[in-house]
Amino acid sequence: MLILMASDHTKKQLADVLARVRKLRLKPHVIPGKNSVAVGITGNSGALDKTLFEALPGVREAVRVTRPYKLAGRDFKHGDTVVPVGPYDIGGRGLIVIAGPCAVESEEQLIRIARAVKKAGAQMLRGGAFKPRTSPYAFQGLGKQGLKLLAAAKKETGLPIVTEVLDQRSLDDVAEYADVLQVGARNMQNFALLKDLGKLRKPVMLKRGLSATLDEWLMSAEYLLSEGNDKLFLCERGIRAFSDHARNTLDLNVVPAVKELSHLPIIVDPSHATGVRARVAPMARAAVAAGAHGLMIEVHDRPDQALCDGPQALHPDDFAVLMRDLAAIGAAVGRDMAEPKFGRQ
Amino acid sequence: MLILMASDHTKKQLADVLARVRKLRLKPHVIPGKNSVAVGITGNSGALDKTLFEALPGVREAVRVTRPYKLAGRDFKHGDTVVPVGPYDIGGRGLIVIAGPCAVESEEQLIRIARAVKKAGAQMLRGGAFKPRTSPYAFQGLGKQGLKLLAAAKKETGLPIVTEVLDQRSLDDVAEYADVLQVGARNMQNFALLKDLGKLRKPVMLKRGLSATLDEWLMSAEYLLSEGNDKLFLCERGIRAFSDHARNTLDLNVVPAVKELSHLPIIVDPSHATGVRARVAPMARAAVAAGAHGLMIEVHDRPDQALCDGPQALHPDDFAVLMRDLAAIGAAVGRDMAEPKFGRQ
Amino acid sequence: MLILMASDHTKKQLADVLARVRKLRLKPHVIPGKNSVAVGITGNSGALDKTLFEALPGVREAVRVTRPYKLAGRDFKHGDTVVPVGPYDIGGRGLIVIAGPCAVESEEQLIRIARAVKKAGAQMLRGGAFKPRTSPYAFQGLGKQGLKLLAAAKKETGLPIVTEVLDQRSLDDVAEYADVLQVGARNMQNFALLKDLGKLRKPVMLKRGLSATLDEWLMSAEYLLSEGNDKLFLCERGIRAFSDHARNTLDLNVVPAVKELSHLPIIVDPSHATGVRARVAPMARAAVAAGAHGLMIEVHDRPDQALCDGPQALHPDDFAVLMRDLAAIGAAVGRDMAEPKFGRQ
Amino acid sequence: MLILMASDHTKKQLADVLARVRKLRLKPHVIPGKNSVAVGITGNSGALDKTLFEALPGVREAVRVTRPYKLAGRDFKHGDTVVPVGPYDIGGRGLIVIAGPCAVESEEQLIRIARAVKKAGAQMLRGGAFKPRTSPYAFQGLGKQGLKLLAAAKKETGLPIVTEVLDQRSLDDVAEYADVLQVGARNMQNFALLKDLGKLRKPVMLKRGLSATLDEWLMSAEYLLSEGNDKLFLCERGIRAFSDHARNTLDLNVVPAVKELSHLPIIVDPSHATGVRARVAPMARAAVAAGAHGLMIEVHDRPDQALCDGPQALHPDDFAVLMRDLAAIGAAVGRDMAEPKFGRQ
Repeated sequence: MLILMASDHTKKQLADVLARVRKLRLKPHVIPGKNSVAVGITGNSGALDKTLFEALPGVREAVRVTRPYKLAGRDFKHGDTVVPVGPYDIGGRGLIVIAGPCAVESEEQLIRIARAVKKAGAQMLRGGAFKPRTSPYAFQGLGKQGLKLLAAAKKETGLPIVTEVLDQRSLDDVAEYADVLQVGARNMQNFALLKDLGKLRKPVMLKRGLSATLDEWLMSAEYLLSEGNDKLFLCERGIRAFSDHARNTLDLNVVPAVKELSHLPIIVDPSHATGVRARVAPMARAAVAAGAHGLMIEVHDRPDQALCDGPQALHPDDFAVLMRDLAAIGAAVGRDMAEPKFGRQ
Repeated sequence: MLILMASDHTKKQLADVLARVRKLRLKPHVIPGKNSVAVGITGNSGALDKTLFEALPGVREAVRVTRPYKLAGRDFKHGDTVVPVGPYDIGGRGLIVIAGPCAVESEEQLIRIARAVKKAGAQMLRGGAFKPRTSPYAFQGLGKQGLKLLAAAKKETGLPIVTEVLDQRSLDDVAEYADVLQVGARNMQNFALLKDLGKLRKPVMLKRGLSATLDEWLMSAEYLLSEGNDKLFLCERGIRAFSDHARNTLDLNVVPAVKELSHLPIIVDPSHATGVRARVAPMARAAVAAGAHGLMIEVHDRPDQALCDGPQALHPDDFAVLMRDLAAIGAAVGRDMAEPKFGRQ
Repeated sequence: MLILMASDHTKKQLADVLARVRKLRLKPHVIPGKNSVAVGITGNSGALDKTLFEALPGVREAVRVTRPYKLAGRDFKHGDTVVPVGPYDIGGRGLIVIAGPCAVESEEQLIRIARAVKKAGAQMLRGGAFKPRTSPYAFQGLGKQGLKLLAAAKKETGLPIVTEVLDQRSLDDVAEYADVLQVGARNMQNFALLKDLGKLRKPVMLKRGLSATLDEWLMSAEYLLSEGNDKLFLCERGIRAFSDHARNTLDLNVVPAVKELSHLPIIVDPSHATGVRARVAPMARAAVAAGAHGLMIEVHDRPDQALCDGPQALHPDDFAVLMRDLAAIGAAVGRDMAEPKFGRQ
Repeated sequence: MLILMASDHTKKQLADVLARVRKLRLKPHVIPGKNSVAVGITGNSGALDKTLFEALPGVREAVRVTRPYKLAGRDFKHGDTVVPVGPYDIGGRGLIVIAGPCAVESEEQLIRIARAVKKAGAQMLRGGAFKPRTSPYAFQGLGKQGLKLLAAAKKETGLPIVTEVLDQRSLDDVAEYADVLQVGARNMQNFALLKDLGKLRKPVMLKRGLSATLDEWLMSAEYLLSEGNDKLFLCERGIRAFSDHARNTLDLNVVPAVKELSHLPIIVDPSHATGVRARVAPMARAAVAAGAHGLMIEVHDRPDQALCDGPQALHPDDFAVLMRDLAAIGAAVGRDMAEPKFGRQ
């Protein structure tokens, strides 16, 4: 932590800052500048609260020299985290593609699409049983019945299931059926839910909030890690900026940034990031070229009848073409499509 | 709803759009343009899902002619909503100021500050018992014990209590002690929590999410209203933009926008919006000048010892000066400081 | 300047950083941390270029301890700058209101509106002769003919003229007729134009760019100040954020921030910030309550016939009401409407 | 154009809207809705000014059915624009890589780097002679002397020259030496400069402004096209959002969006978009995978001595590795590295 004093600070104010540092059993280092003075602090074992110092008179700003997260950062763990899900590893050399409909609508719909994405090479099946919707009047998902249909699709195809958990009340149900519990963008800072998920011993996929900085995202990961759940991977799905040519602004540059700062795997969701079918494939290809460990893609064979987000769903035929393109781009950046550890069923 | 066809749409695609409109028992109106065609839709009783049409081939975009919310809008209710809280009304001519510490820290701290803000003229007491924190290592609040201290402060001063509800598990406890349940920015789209609050019959203050559009905010209000709870008011607390001179960007222009589009009262939180003590008073004055129904302001008598957000807390003396300024500005825009309906105690 | 080393930096890399600091004839101060090391730098007389250090291997980040601007900051000049324009001072205790049409359209239109705003109490007249337009097909202003009409309106009413300069070619013409040369948001970082304006000895109003940080804005001011023109004031006119309920997001919190960091006066343009007539008055009142030194407001007596930005123009009658409200709010924050130094004409 | 009436509009207001439409010799189509009424307009040959209608009482909003640009859009020109530059075409099947230092520093530096990027396969040389700098105290470029050094490097290597034009005064000089004139992000809406460039008959590269929407970008292109210069291509270089893990937020999703809406070629600048060397290669690869026609990349063989933006410059060896990766990814998306039309020299 570095304390920057205001240019018009008094000697008394500087002395108070030094006293507070010493009271915390830390060591202050005064660095005189032309217009002002800075105070470096050493000796702390974890992140310090900036407001402990910014509240003092004469202090202009407190600047962190170390990052606020600990368990999520590479200082803590140098190797890469690999999250095993069924016969696959997320975070290794193999590319993982999670595909399926936005929402579970019926048994026929789900199994039809599950078979199609499996045939095209997807490793996991997605499908929402509990849906977060901006409008209270929009389709909210089939709920527990949807979870049972996901189980049926898993039985039929062998694909592990990725599905969203919306709240604490439905957590036990979702945990019973899901192979990976998805935390949606709107829940990235639902700290109560994060703590509960930290106590689970099941894989969790943490989506980035619409306006979350990288530090905030990793701090939310820290909530799970500090509770003991390290079966965790991240998913970039677009942020909110001024730009209006797409639903969200896909921040692919966060992929190398996450890989530099954290040991956690990161995948990309080009469907929600673009909101438009024609742009899903270019952004999926770009995500693999940028180094993502995988993708989550919405696929629907009758998108004009979909109860949710039809315009962004790929048709299974287009998805199959995309999977071949992804394999070619993967090869160019040293990655293969992941194969099941125990052989293809 | 208006459907804009792509410039290269086919006759068949236009016919399919018209067929879908009719299948929904609505009426299409074709409007030919120079480069393309638009289709107006009439006959719907509520908001239509844009994706029902955007998923069809040949459709460029669907544009809403009416707003997506219904109960939150002025088309539904022309008069202004007034929310009674103890002896005060929020949403009427009287200005309401909710003041107190960021977090409840101890009985002495809370009662000392509660007396100070009452003396300066505040109508309600704020104080967090359950605190949402970006870091799992930061002070998370005293929990249920904090609620009991708030009750003690209410008994001592008569001030109604405004405190945050973080999750479904603690909802019953918070509802037992709070006069107003606060939904924080990070929970604005925690739809499960909103539904539960909609079933309560207690006043709720809904803060705007960091990256929420006005439509999204009013749709979250719609979740409560559609469940039957209309004791609801809004709180602007700053949005996230590129700007880095303050913690958030206070969007005061949303105050007249809310008052134009909705019947719900709106107050402003200049403390979280600025994050810096010296800017709280200017923004509080500006909020009243912009037409806000009230304010929520953090006050602490020992801000350098505060366990949370000390740098943005006003000292009680400065708060008292601000209250006098607010009364003067209120007078200039036709508002008085609210007086208790049954007389000062 | 403070250099933060990467957590995996080598001894050699640290030594290279220290060597570079010394080569610049500055003094390094090593500050050891738990996970890494920081190096404080002292001895520099001006701002250092961060990239001089960030390019070195093993460096994570360079953090400025002092601000990048010098002449625009309060470290350089403690008192407030006051810019004299005709019989008025901008930056003193008196509120300045610059009012008039978006564009000069004809002699009758301009003189009619000039008389109306003068009667309502405005101190200066605005009107665009050269208009920056997003579309090449939109009305681009009357050009030099517009400048002559502004001169006629000044002769008629005595109001000093504020008008925009768009480029270097028309600079001499604009400088001949204008009392204040306005730099528009899109030109805030047109450094060639700023240098030319720095060599003038006429007052300049520098609008904030749509996505300019406060530091960038003050650095643009620094371009003028470093060339010797200190007859300079700033104008906040709304920034670009995700929010879509208004044309721009008015950042009123920048008003106290500018006053804290800089000695330059700051006014607010609520017309461009909102883009909607009904919200101009609330934001104008809020700006004065926030401490702005003045306002720039678009007024048109036939807004539905205006060639530019009619929807945001106030009718003269509404402007007159607003002027009375502003006087009342000004009184509440210790400001009067500015009176001419040599008496009303 | 579609006019949405306010829900409380009067019959008189609607009649006035219809009258105005007819006065413009256009045809109104009334579309009744549940809560309000919309009016479709047909018969216009170009884009209508929304403010012509939004200024009328009772009008809530005017919505464009057709895009505001004309010459830049695909409705005007269905095939793709190809811009010939020396022996290369920008906008065809071949990938174009423009590489070189941020700023021209000396003849040795420039020729050394020019040879290195040519050897690695770059098709064109970049180098700034006139540099836009946020600070007046930063290196502003060698000016005309820099242009002469670029000419020397072209003579030496045969690489066409891409360099920035900052203002109208230096336009003739830059046009004499440059094969492509670059308009920087800060000048994207310098309309006076755009008009002058529209009268040139030399290729222009138009960078996207930091906060420019896609429509605004294409409207700036329209300024050049409407003056007659169609030797034009676009360059995405990152936008400004809240995100702070990189200098800018690279908006790769704009690549398919531009290709859908416009016939103009689009390349990507990953150096300015990231600001950090380690992330340039991932974003360069992603841009090609997303379908960009080319790249602009900063290369410096002594980045720690660079006078400008050293931290984002690739070393020639790393650039050579990247070029091989780009060729592999290009192959996966059906593109080759462009070869000179008349054979390698």
